[in-house]
Amino acid sequence: MEKKAEYTHSFYLTAGEAGAQSTMPLTLLVQRVIEVATEHANALNIGYATLASHGVAWVLSKISVEMQRYPAINEQYSLTTWIESYNRRFCDRCFALTGSDGVTIGHIRTVWTAIDVRRRCMADLTEFERDTFPLSERPCPVEKTPRLPALPDNASAQQYTFRYCDIDFNRHVNSVRYLAMVLNHWTMDHFDNNTIRHIDICYHRECYFGETVQLRVATRDRVSDCEIARDGTRAVGVRIIWAPRVQKC
Amino acid sequence: MEKKAEYTHSFYLTAGEAGAQSTMPLTLLVQRVIEVATEHANALNIGYATLASHGVAWVLSKISVEMQRYPAINEQYSLTTWIESYNRRFCDRCFALTGSDGVTIGHIRTVWTAIDVRRRCMADLTEFERDTFPLSERPCPVEKTPRLPALPDNASAQQYTFRYCDIDFNRHVNSVRYLAMVLNHWTMDHFDNNTIRHIDICYHRECYFGETVQLRVATRDRVSDCEIARDGTRAVGVRIIWAPRVQKC
Repeated sequence: MEKKAEYTHSFYLTAGEAGAQSTMPLTLLVQRVIEVATEHANALNIGYATLASHGVAWVLSKISVEMQRYPAINEQYSLTTWIESYNRRFCDRCFALTGSDGVTIGHIRTVWTAIDVRRRCMADLTEFERDTFPLSERPCPVEKTPRLPALPDNASAQQYTFRYCDIDFNRHVNSVRYLAMVLNHWTMDHFDNNTIRHIDICYHRECYFGETVQLRVATRDRVSDCEIARDGTRAVGVRIIWAPRVQKC
Repeated sequence: MEKKAEYTHSFYLTAGEAGAQSTMPLTLLVQRVIEVATEHANALNIGYATLASHGVAWVLSKISVEMQRYPAINEQYSLTTWIESYNRRFCDRCFALTGSDGVTIGHIRTVWTAIDVRRRCMADLTEFERDTFPLSERPCPVEKTPRLPALPDNASAQQYTFRYCDIDFNRHVNSVRYLAMVLNHWTMDHFDNNTIRHIDICYHRECYFGETVQLRVATRDRVSDCEIARDGTRAVGVRIIWAPRVQKC
């Protein structure tokens, strides 16, 4: 199979997949990003099956999403991905999201790391052939995911315990479920009036079935800093930049 | 476009979509069922767009799933759907799920109803052209979804409040989120040792953002009866039939 530096998958947003504002939910967008990254890695022979045979698995480490708008119900959209750079620890992978009119409506920047499944630590990617990582020169306008500063003491706090449907094949909490947990902090009214223009997520530590974590949120102007912490140590950091939702007439 | 009585969509189970047991989660299966039903309805011109222009939307009313096995990571599978019967209130739609070896590994039976989006009551489908519902003679071995009996007084009880990510474009709780709420009742150990051979779900009443419901579960032998109730009235009834999970050597 030819190892292409860019890979594109086209989708169609069905009504049942849409969120309360009749557009693509951010959770589904992140799910699609993971799916398309996996498909491209599989095509490059650095996917699930190859890594699993070495006891290694890809894990999403950072993601930044910047959207001009989200696909609407019944809209055809496509996600194109490419590898920007890599070293023996990390792989930087970018994405462009194109709407049905052919206009790019968002970009996504991700960092992936490989973990040793049994020892639950970072794996070394040098043993995988270097020429299986074809790079693309295509620019991605999203800046590298920044590290979230410590939250102020007056940040709000809620508890959550991870259950069966939060867990993925790596036996840790699914990347998308942390995001859902953060988004569930806000009211429907807030989402009716605001949209997420930009989000940064840093996955620092794995969480497991049955663990209870604390979600802390501090909002100033249009920026919400959020942290999921276990025993006082940050597991996931999230920064959301909100924009007013333009109401249709 | 030709109105075909059967519609098939092929998928590929990526690693990131798999559950903790490295197979297709039941929540994803129900999501795919809804997606494929929507695509077929769209192709028949009785989909989201057509109904929305009449202020009407399809809602899943009942679903029964019977599985011999679930697709594995990196397995290609396909879902075929057909309309078995309909009247002015309901549409009975069935599905066959085929694994990568071409063998049918499960069947699904669903009942759909149309709701008047503004008045939140059942809509009448007679105004939609009858010839847009081509029927198939293909048999579906899954029996009609039974009504769950009242739960015993000693059933377990837990509370849950619906949040933003639980809500869909119809502005009520997403069919799949009720199921996740039910499945989250059990431990990881239970799912490592048991698989769902059969499930029946009846959606009786809509739930909305911010509502707090009670999940009650009563298990006897290999059958778990579950109820999601709001103010003592059943919103969703679920019966699960478990089978021991066959461990791989």
